[in-house]
Amino acid sequence: MLHTIKKIGVFTSGGDSPGMNAAIRSVVRSCAFHDIECVGIYRGYEGMIEGDFKSMNARSVKGIINKGGTVLKSARSKEFRTAEGRKKAYDKLVEAGIDAFVVIGGDGSFTGAMIFSQEYGIPVMGIPGTIDNDIFGTSHTLGYDTALNTVVEAIDKIRDTASSHNRLFFIEVMGRDVGHIALNVGIGAGAEEILIPEEDLGLDRLVESLRRSKQSGKSSSIVVVAEGDKIGKSVFELKDYVDANMSEYEVRVSVLGHMQRGGSPSCFDRVLASRMGVKAVESLITGKSNYMVGLKNDVMALTPLDQAVKGKSKINLELLRVSDIMSI
Amino acid sequence: MLHTIKKIGVFTSGGDSPGMNAAIRSVVRSCAFHDIECVGIYRGYEGMIEGDFKSMNARSVKGIINKGGTVLKSARSKEFRTAEGRKKAYDKLVEAGIDAFVVIGGDGSFTGAMIFSQEYGIPVMGIPGTIDNDIFGTSHTLGYDTALNTVVEAIDKIRDTASSHNRLFFIEVMGRDVGHIALNVGIGAGAEEILIPEEDLGLDRLVESLRRSKQSGKSSSIVVVAEGDKIGKSVFELKDYVDANMSEYEVRVSVLGHMQRGGSPSCFDRVLASRMGVKAVESLITGKSNYMVGLKNDVMALTPLDQAVKGKSKINLELLRVSDIMSI
Amino acid sequence: MLHTIKKIGVFTSGGDSPGMNAAIRSVVRSCAFHDIECVGIYRGYEGMIEGDFKSMNARSVKGIINKGGTVLKSARSKEFRTAEGRKKAYDKLVEAGIDAFVVIGGDGSFTGAMIFSQEYGIPVMGIPGTIDNDIFGTSHTLGYDTALNTVVEAIDKIRDTASSHNRLFFIEVMGRDVGHIALNVGIGAGAEEILIPEEDLGLDRLVESLRRSKQSGKSSSIVVVAEGDKIGKSVFELKDYVDANMSEYEVRVSVLGHMQRGGSPSCFDRVLASRMGVKAVESLITGKSNYMVGLKNDVMALTPLDQAVKGKSKINLELLRVSDIMSI
Amino acid sequence: MLHTIKKIGVFTSGGDSPGMNAAIRSVVRSCAFHDIECVGIYRGYEGMIEGDFKSMNARSVKGIINKGGTVLKSARSKEFRTAEGRKKAYDKLVEAGIDAFVVIGGDGSFTGAMIFSQEYGIPVMGIPGTIDNDIFGTSHTLGYDTALNTVVEAIDKIRDTASSHNRLFFIEVMGRDVGHIALNVGIGAGAEEILIPEEDLGLDRLVESLRRSKQSGKSSSIVVVAEGDKIGKSVFELKDYVDANMSEYEVRVSVLGHMQRGGSPSCFDRVLASRMGVKAVESLITGKSNYMVGLKNDVMALTPLDQAVKGKSKINLELLRVSDIMSI
Repeated sequence: MLHTIKKIGVFTSGGDSPGMNAAIRSVVRSCAFHDIECVGIYRGYEGMIEGDFKSMNARSVKGIINKGGTVLKSARSKEFRTAEGRKKAYDKLVEAGIDAFVVIGGDGSFTGAMIFSQEYGIPVMGIPGTIDNDIFGTSHTLGYDTALNTVVEAIDKIRDTASSHNRLFFIEVMGRDVGHIALNVGIGAGAEEILIPEEDLGLDRLVESLRRSKQSGKSSSIVVVAEGDKIGKSVFELKDYVDANMSEYEVRVSVLGHMQRGGSPSCFDRVLASRMGVKAVESLITGKSNYMVGLKNDVMALTPLDQAVKGKSKINLELLRVSDIMSI
Repeated sequence: MLHTIKKIGVFTSGGDSPGMNAAIRSVVRSCAFHDIECVGIYRGYEGMIEGDFKSMNARSVKGIINKGGTVLKSARSKEFRTAEGRKKAYDKLVEAGIDAFVVIGGDGSFTGAMIFSQEYGIPVMGIPGTIDNDIFGTSHTLGYDTALNTVVEAIDKIRDTASSHNRLFFIEVMGRDVGHIALNVGIGAGAEEILIPEEDLGLDRLVESLRRSKQSGKSSSIVVVAEGDKIGKSVFELKDYVDANMSEYEVRVSVLGHMQRGGSPSCFDRVLASRMGVKAVESLITGKSNYMVGLKNDVMALTPLDQAVKGKSKINLELLRVSDIMSI
Repeated sequence: MLHTIKKIGVFTSGGDSPGMNAAIRSVVRSCAFHDIECVGIYRGYEGMIEGDFKSMNARSVKGIINKGGTVLKSARSKEFRTAEGRKKAYDKLVEAGIDAFVVIGGDGSFTGAMIFSQEYGIPVMGIPGTIDNDIFGTSHTLGYDTALNTVVEAIDKIRDTASSHNRLFFIEVMGRDVGHIALNVGIGAGAEEILIPEEDLGLDRLVESLRRSKQSGKSSSIVVVAEGDKIGKSVFELKDYVDANMSEYEVRVSVLGHMQRGGSPSCFDRVLASRMGVKAVESLITGKSNYMVGLKNDVMALTPLDQAVKGKSKINLELLRVSDIMSI
Repeated sequence: MLHTIKKIGVFTSGGDSPGMNAAIRSVVRSCAFHDIECVGIYRGYEGMIEGDFKSMNARSVKGIINKGGTVLKSARSKEFRTAEGRKKAYDKLVEAGIDAFVVIGGDGSFTGAMIFSQEYGIPVMGIPGTIDNDIFGTSHTLGYDTALNTVVEAIDKIRDTASSHNRLFFIEVMGRDVGHIALNVGIGAGAEEILIPEEDLGLDRLVESLRRSKQSGKSSSIVVVAEGDKIGKSVFELKDYVDANMSEYEVRVSVLGHMQRGGSPSCFDRVLASRMGVKAVESLITGKSNYMVGLKNDVMALTPLDQAVKGKSKINLELLRVSDIMSI
């Protein structure tokens, strides 16, 4: 027999990403649509432990679909990793009458939800929100598409000045474990080389490639470097290496940093967030638990949270070839 | 026995869309990569008939990946619809040694290519370039994703002033035959109602919905209307109808118009264009002809041109539901 | 002896413009800085009559500096034009203890403030908020700079498609009485001709100019038309006229409409709004009344409200020459 | 007796800035308008020495008004600092028949022009192109307004994530010698503190101010730091200091870097560039030499190059007060 859900909690957890607000709005309005109460939980698990709750109705989420960041704030919680912390959180949920929740976040946030759900039997659903697109079970995480555009626009600007001065730029973009951002913005911004965690180009081949690029008549070059690139060098170290081994270029460095996480979400991310929120709430209503909502072949699909956490998001190898051909 | 291809022509045809330049660049560089000559044909079939050609190498397409419009210009050609016109075009191709071509455009352009290929046996490949996403055989046409962002950003601006004055706006967006743009930007911009060619909401239900929306406490409302909406009324007629039947709102109208076709392509469109250009050229090299390159489930896929032309691109019905729920 | 001001009201009135929120924020924080209470009045004079007030402190205006529109909403009030309406408004102000106010708006709003101040002796200060820049006593009104960028970006997009198809576009921009926007975006977007309220080019000279433009090798043309252009033709009529009298161009029309009023304010408008808010509050504190805060030669300056209302904002004739030279 | 000018050279020199292309376009078209030949000189003085010239007419500069960077490229030339280098440059100019030139750049570029003009009697005019606004004799340098918007938009994005996590960000913006950018974007982005070269806040007062800011209920804080801030600490050192002395915040750092130099120019910069180009060419025609074209009180004005180089661009002290009040 299904436990009928009467009140759903929603929160954002871990690093924020564009589209989180649109997802919150969708969860809240999906609840309203199905006559379920909805409670916003501030600052993720931290706020759950503290009972930092706010009742939300359809109007509470007005005007946030196009805002970056998260109106519910986000945090990482050490206390929730302890059994005591989770007990406190559970007590607060019970006290508030919350009998299921939707967590918007990444791997770490999902792991917390799984453990909590196992311990206390509360139904949970995950919505993947991170710009890194590093989550298994969805072709796109919330914020990823927006981040691609943010980064490409920033590199377009850097290209202006690179071209004017015949310079070589090493540009660091986010992506500690996977190269999705680097690979796509590298192609999108017309980078000469792309350094990602999945592939070790090697410094010699990098220098060789840059030399060939110069000889082919290119006046400037952009190398996009994921934070976690396999070569294992920071953009500053790469600059030093090239300075020491090539005289052809004047080298500059740019670390795009946290601006990649912000900004108004793209249309794609807003629609995706809206779809995911509906799917998450309706899955809870139909008795499902411990799944992550994802996009697979343009269709909403559920992946068990443990698979989402254990699985690995893989880059599209076709893109590596395309990048090679484009940088001829 | 395969006819070995030595020189490929490329052109844009019909309405332009963001990403066409990125696709031209990709075709040109893919040719360079495979040691095939590449010739740009200006103004579509019109320029083919006139022999308005330009030899292109990897450097010719430098700095265009992020530019809207098309450096090869575009046009619609009446003459090409005649047998004489096509004969002239063929003679010019032969004269220039072009033995295959890639056409970037929509339905009409593909039909021309098919007929031409049947008559003269020249291998052709199509790349779908139009903001309307109205082509069968690909989940995304070039420029569609960019247009979604352009429109959503414009509506965000209109929302600012709508909210400040408690107004109702009817906003016309592109989409004569399919409601993809209207449906997605409607969700993305938080529209109260979306009028599309595929569904007849009816004027009475529209008014009723707007009335309910006002009662629920919304201070402003946006109705997104596709050019070819099923109700069959222009945004100006809709305004008149609402003015005559509702006193709750001050009504305004906006026709977004041609700005929807322009602008720097999104990262998604740049990457898609790059992939499509590679696929088109490599398909020609391997002896294929009369196909359109498309994206299916995030993978490059070929669709016979006649199917691409005859088939119908369908909207995602899930989105209609999501839109209803979101506008509660 | 000066009446010491203890509580200042602030509201936005008339058409909204980007930067109004930044100005509200500045008024509120300037009050907080000087230990004066601040009250937000919703929907301009309408809300004043209804006593739709909200106490505001420094934190109330958090996160609004970069938002378009106005959090205090705006409206036009017929009732305030009557003596009875103003009496009601005065009673509400007295009831709330508001002893001075800052009105952010245009000519009509300032006229209302002047009359009210004369009748009831309440000190008032005006901040010019309108995208049209049509107010005497300030080189820039709030929102004008943002609107210029919004329009130029929209025309850049239209230019993409105009160039791709060798088209002529008539683009209507805001400006019923003055040509500031048309003149500046015309130059900024590289328009071939600019039609403004201040100058009658004449249809014959327009056609002649477009013909010359075509002959000089231009592939596309943009004509920017202010709403109140002197020729007295709408962009649709202009299209018809050119269609009937020129065969050189394929003509298209675009009316940019209300999106021009929205959007996140430019840095210039945010800084200007911040400066104006400080100046308005500190002027009230020092006993001044019935002035408009303005920017003159990059310095804050006060203009008596009656002069601001009666005076005429003039276009810079140098720009007409620059435009002529640029469109060679 | 005036030397009649028949051929004008134009080039960009030093760091590039948005609006340089618009200025090149204006110089070229102003020459065309006055029937004077125009020659583009590539890579500044370096290209002058090498005779890297290109004849330009009104059509050569089509489609560049909205592009960042400079189509004529830019460079710094060591050789031009030597008498031999300048002799070579002069010979090349004579050879090409160039009898005057317009240099678009900053202090260093103007100094070169002055020395060259003194040595060889060739008339020169300067157009101030740099994002830093650090040049005496003009209220705005080309690119400054665009950079303000670029930076404010980047900080808006960072603010999204800062607010979501209750973080403190130190953001480094350009400005080695003057704080114009930092001061304006600091106000525009709602920064809590602004560190500039002109004023030494002191570390203690910074910490105190941040502490107060936290206590007043602010959830996040932005400190904008000019490259050449008076405290003399990099954003990384500032982070370390605050980490060591405050526990209230989680601190992050962002260096905006070279993206600040690029991007499509704002409407203001496009119009300014157009006006400056006209003024520069017409000043040369009327026999003037050794001046910089500038904007003073919204009017074009000439400043002798030596004054432009020696003078100091001062920040507006009013803005310091406004910033203090806004961050209450």
